[in-house]
Amino acid sequence: MKKFFYPESIAVFGVSEARSNLARIIAGNLVSFGFRGDIYPVGTSQGMVAGIKILAGLDEVATVPDLAVVLVPARYAPQTLEVCGRKGIRNVILESGGFSEFSGDRRALEDEMLSIARRYRMTVIGPNCFGIVNLEAGVVVPFFIMDPQYMKKGSASLISQSGGVFYDTCMLCSVENVGLRKLVSIGNKLMTNENDILEYMLGDEGTGVVGLYLENFSDGRRFMNLAASSDKPIVVLKANRSPSSGEIAKFHTTALAGDDDVADAAMRQAGVIRVTNFQEMVDCFKVFSLPVLQGRRLALISRSGGHGVLSADAARRYGFEFASLSDGFYEGIAQKKLNVIAATNPLDIGDIYDLNEYGSILEMALQENGVDGVVFVVTYSSESDGSKVRDFFRFASRVTPAYNKPVALCVVTNRAEWFGVKEAADLPVFTDVDQAMRALEWSLRHYEAKRRRRSAPPRPDGPPRTHADEGRARRFLDPAECFSLLSRWQLPVAENASAGSRDEVLARAEILGYPLALKSGEGEMLHKSEAGGVFLDIRDREDLLRALEAMDAKRYIIQRMVSQGREIIIGGRFDNEFGPVVVCGLGGIYVEILADRSIRVAPVDEAEARGMIDDLKGASILNGARGRMPADTRALTEVIVGVSNLLAANPDIVNLDINPVIVYDEGKGCVIVDAKIEMLDR
Amino acid sequence: MKKFFYPESIAVFGVSEARSNLARIIAGNLVSFGFRGDIYPVGTSQGMVAGIKILAGLDEVATVPDLAVVLVPARYAPQTLEVCGRKGIRNVILESGGFSEFSGDRRALEDEMLSIARRYRMTVIGPNCFGIVNLEAGVVVPFFIMDPQYMKKGSASLISQSGGVFYDTCMLCSVENVGLRKLVSIGNKLMTNENDILEYMLGDEGTGVVGLYLENFSDGRRFMNLAASSDKPIVVLKANRSPSSGEIAKFHTTALAGDDDVADAAMRQAGVIRVTNFQEMVDCFKVFSLPVLQGRRLALISRSGGHGVLSADAARRYGFEFASLSDGFYEGIAQKKLNVIAATNPLDIGDIYDLNEYGSILEMALQENGVDGVVFVVTYSSESDGSKVRDFFRFASRVTPAYNKPVALCVVTNRAEWFGVKEAADLPVFTDVDQAMRALEWSLRHYEAKRRRRSAPPRPDGPPRTHADEGRARRFLDPAECFSLLSRWQLPVAENASAGSRDEVLARAEILGYPLALKSGEGEMLHKSEAGGVFLDIRDREDLLRALEAMDAKRYIIQRMVSQGREIIIGGRFDNEFGPVVVCGLGGIYVEILADRSIRVAPVDEAEARGMIDDLKGASILNGARGRMPADTRALTEVIVGVSNLLAANPDIVNLDINPVIVYDEGKGCVIVDAKIEMLDR
Repeated sequence: MKKFFYPESIAVFGVSEARSNLARIIAGNLVSFGFRGDIYPVGTSQGMVAGIKILAGLDEVATVPDLAVVLVPARYAPQTLEVCGRKGIRNVILESGGFSEFSGDRRALEDEMLSIARRYRMTVIGPNCFGIVNLEAGVVVPFFIMDPQYMKKGSASLISQSGGVFYDTCMLCSVENVGLRKLVSIGNKLMTNENDILEYMLGDEGTGVVGLYLENFSDGRRFMNLAASSDKPIVVLKANRSPSSGEIAKFHTTALAGDDDVADAAMRQAGVIRVTNFQEMVDCFKVFSLPVLQGRRLALISRSGGHGVLSADAARRYGFEFASLSDGFYEGIAQKKLNVIAATNPLDIGDIYDLNEYGSILEMALQENGVDGVVFVVTYSSESDGSKVRDFFRFASRVTPAYNKPVALCVVTNRAEWFGVKEAADLPVFTDVDQAMRALEWSLRHYEAKRRRRSAPPRPDGPPRTHADEGRARRFLDPAECFSLLSRWQLPVAENASAGSRDEVLARAEILGYPLALKSGEGEMLHKSEAGGVFLDIRDREDLLRALEAMDAKRYIIQRMVSQGREIIIGGRFDNEFGPVVVCGLGGIYVEILADRSIRVAPVDEAEARGMIDDLKGASILNGARGRMPADTRALTEVIVGVSNLLAANPDIVNLDINPVIVYDEGKGCVIVDAKIEMLDR
Repeated sequence: MKKFFYPESIAVFGVSEARSNLARIIAGNLVSFGFRGDIYPVGTSQGMVAGIKILAGLDEVATVPDLAVVLVPARYAPQTLEVCGRKGIRNVILESGGFSEFSGDRRALEDEMLSIARRYRMTVIGPNCFGIVNLEAGVVVPFFIMDPQYMKKGSASLISQSGGVFYDTCMLCSVENVGLRKLVSIGNKLMTNENDILEYMLGDEGTGVVGLYLENFSDGRRFMNLAASSDKPIVVLKANRSPSSGEIAKFHTTALAGDDDVADAAMRQAGVIRVTNFQEMVDCFKVFSLPVLQGRRLALISRSGGHGVLSADAARRYGFEFASLSDGFYEGIAQKKLNVIAATNPLDIGDIYDLNEYGSILEMALQENGVDGVVFVVTYSSESDGSKVRDFFRFASRVTPAYNKPVALCVVTNRAEWFGVKEAADLPVFTDVDQAMRALEWSLRHYEAKRRRRSAPPRPDGPPRTHADEGRARRFLDPAECFSLLSRWQLPVAENASAGSRDEVLARAEILGYPLALKSGEGEMLHKSEAGGVFLDIRDREDLLRALEAMDAKRYIIQRMVSQGREIIIGGRFDNEFGPVVVCGLGGIYVEILADRSIRVAPVDEAEARGMIDDLKGASILNGARGRMPADTRALTEVIVGVSNLLAANPDIVNLDINPVIVYDEGKGCVIVDAKIEMLDR
């Protein structure tokens, strides 16, 4: 992958002198960003681009270019790849569009390219992409004009599945003075997907944060493992949240864990920050250019009462605490006062008109042991105090690194000052304090996720990822198979027995003991009670005989009746992006009406399973709210872990519903009463 | 109020030539914004400001200035008011700070000013404020420099309780090219509060939208009535969301309806848009400069697949529908094509490279009957296509008014183009499509609120607003008083009787009939069951005798046992900003664990009460979820209306809990089983 970012020579295919030619812009960008290697523009017509002669082919070139950038009409793409392959080029960025994204029948063209690439052992990025930007090496190959003037170097790297989003993110970063490092537009991901690039970027020393725009995950499990393998923050704008097409009627789990819900849960599980729009992505880039926030205690400083109140509101909204500041701190402030300043946090320094004092106030706040981070809202007269504020920002950027605490500066100013104040120093500048605080919350969340990860390495690397192919036949396990599979995983299934005849039922009932339930043991157990397939609370042999009389089945299951307790649903399904996932929720209204459930990619360990329970809005029901005994969440945790292991080890399970698990009071365990499993039929 | 905004002459007090003097900036602003009337700077030292001679007093001035702007140290403020009063000035803006906002002991100073103002029948805005901006008349009196260059005239007016927020909103509007009309910083609201200004602005023809930054509501009911009286959108950034200090233990209602919850509910009830930060305020100003959105069907147009996907996500997030576009529309688009364009909404026009076509595409979308509004994401090469995009925006601003549908343009571009593209036309430009869509949702919400209001005029103008003074004594109604108050309001209290002796209990029980409940009839009914103050399910005289034996009370209540049903809690309390409010929620876990409740300012009509029920997350429990009969929500609605009328008519009620109301199946009514009322003791 390195040669993509640091090639010594680049061939650009598809170049001409024509005004409408886009490939010539690629050569122009390489020149204007000072790429130091050789550039070989290749095209069918003669002429010059960016001061370089257009070549008819690479035969005249003695060396083998490290990288080819191809922007030719789709139908010529295979032969261009062939040319590259023959020349010995191993790395190709195919920017041309008009493939599978355009119409399904172009997939053959992609397959053809794939086989050429494989034959020559080439790595191809694209097609249908904007290529790569590596500012460090002047490798800037998108086919639109970029300007070194506003492309600031920094530590944020980007992977984007969309060219338009790639472009807009560059522009927004330039406007917000966010420095960029390596950017890749991955397009149709024919050979190279987000994980391939992510792996490289996580190893790239100068990359401090990686942002991704994705419309789908090529391999969700690999993504999670990559994310967990690194301390670098990863920020994902995952689009395409369309509701799951899934089988809502048959399984609770499917209804409760749509594709986007799973993606959301997986990202959280992997400690990845998910954002909803560009602005949030850029805010992440800003906050992750600062030291990571390591606690909830903030010092809030502003120059106006209003901003103080808004800061306090925002701090509460994002779960921060108001750091308690020392007497020494307040005494220091009082010495700078014009009037008496109230010793409060948020601190209003509106009475300190000498902006030169701001630097020392900030430093005093950073020195406080009880302060994890500082938010400083700098309202100032744009017309008169601009240069002082810029001085303050420069001071802040010099002094803060020593304290390893983030400082979020918030400024609104007039149009003339707008960019200047953002560019004054190498510190990010936020507009609204609400936005700054939200970004700090991401920072803290990242810190906590990484700390958690260090104590417990991620689990979801277990099972190989296979597709629950929609086309393949499926079948429901019959109830006996279902219970026996669960039992093999040491899951606490209610005592039961299966029988092939009425006599056998009666005999087994004597051994199992009454009261018991009689269920049809045939095929899928759907809508059992509606179909007369279940009789509960059978007290004795007479009862059982009557029930058998009424039930017309070839196989039966009898099951010991269990006493009442809190009902939990545990489910699972195979997700096409993340493989087996496990879901849990409280029975009854909680899942059905409130959609209160938590999701994880399987398998999960005990801490993660415990986290699933705690995530539930109704968790307090289990923890002993309303004067009840706490439930045996420890036993429930074990069941969740067990189910998740079962799912992870059996990727052929398409859907699984355990409904209910009855959970008893603390120390009294839990028991699975009913379950339903649908598998791929092999 | 008009003379504040359109004075013919203005006196400015507190002026000097000193560099540090702030009042001289006021005179400077008036001059630079082209105020055409007379300006009289008044100060203690001689000299000139903004080319005008500083006067020692107003004696030399023949006419009476329409407006005085005062910026003198706080201690001199009363005497300056006195001078104004004697001169006959009726309108004063007092910008000086250092009053009650600074320290409690300065309240005396404010009282002194108040009595001077009343004596001379002056209206005072402030103190501790930035004054007024009326761009139309060049009345710009804040004491910081403002520049006509970036203060764009438009239709957004602002009322701000904080000077810093006032200033930042001006700056952000200038940066976002949002046009402003009248801005007022109200400071400490000594005589003039947000409602006084709001009333004026709602009547101001050129004001299209009013934004407010508030830290408290001076008179929430008047605010609601003003909001309901106008079709103009009102946007509130209400800060100071600190949790209620209220008596959480004793009343459900207080715990469930904190001050900010009430404010939030009241704003929704009044059809006011509440925003959380500046950016949202400015986005509101943008969207309300467009025609109001009158339906959910949007046409989404973008130039990149990625933006199309993001648009679709955002549309779903905010509850929009994808307009179905006619064949004619798609045929028209296809004629402009380079390649075949998929006939979809979101529509990807990435293949139409001729930006001149965008105008007609937009107009075609507006012409579609099935389209309520258009979102157009314009990704373009900042380096080469800027002027074409600006042309398109100008075309859009010319053509859209004819269709009375909003068009939200979204653009991200480079730093050099950033302001230019926003200023190209008189149409607002959004950055992110998510932001644009959220703004459109506000527009639709405003439209729907106003339509609702027209069919049902607002109710909360009923009761006079009086303070539930914290200092005054309170008492609990005893159970008999409680029930009889509810009964007087025709509320369905379970049949009951009170008795002063055991014999009387026994006698009344015979009339009432068994089974019944026996409760202590003394004082407050708190923690009754814990204290042995309640016996339920008394089957006969023997049972009753035993219960009486165990209960040590001076007064008793007996009550017919009622059958089981769905339990609802209805409560109320007196809110210091909004007066009586009513709250309802489902009993049990819903309110206790899920805090699922809805709040309205009382009184409410049937539609509003029905809305309260529908707002509940657990509403489907009442509407017949999980195979149960629907509950008698009609009867419940009547109870809510009745309780709200009771509360509105009795502002001395501090807290009220009706817990539970048992609601039976449809047509079977509901019954109040228990209630608790705390009142001011008069």
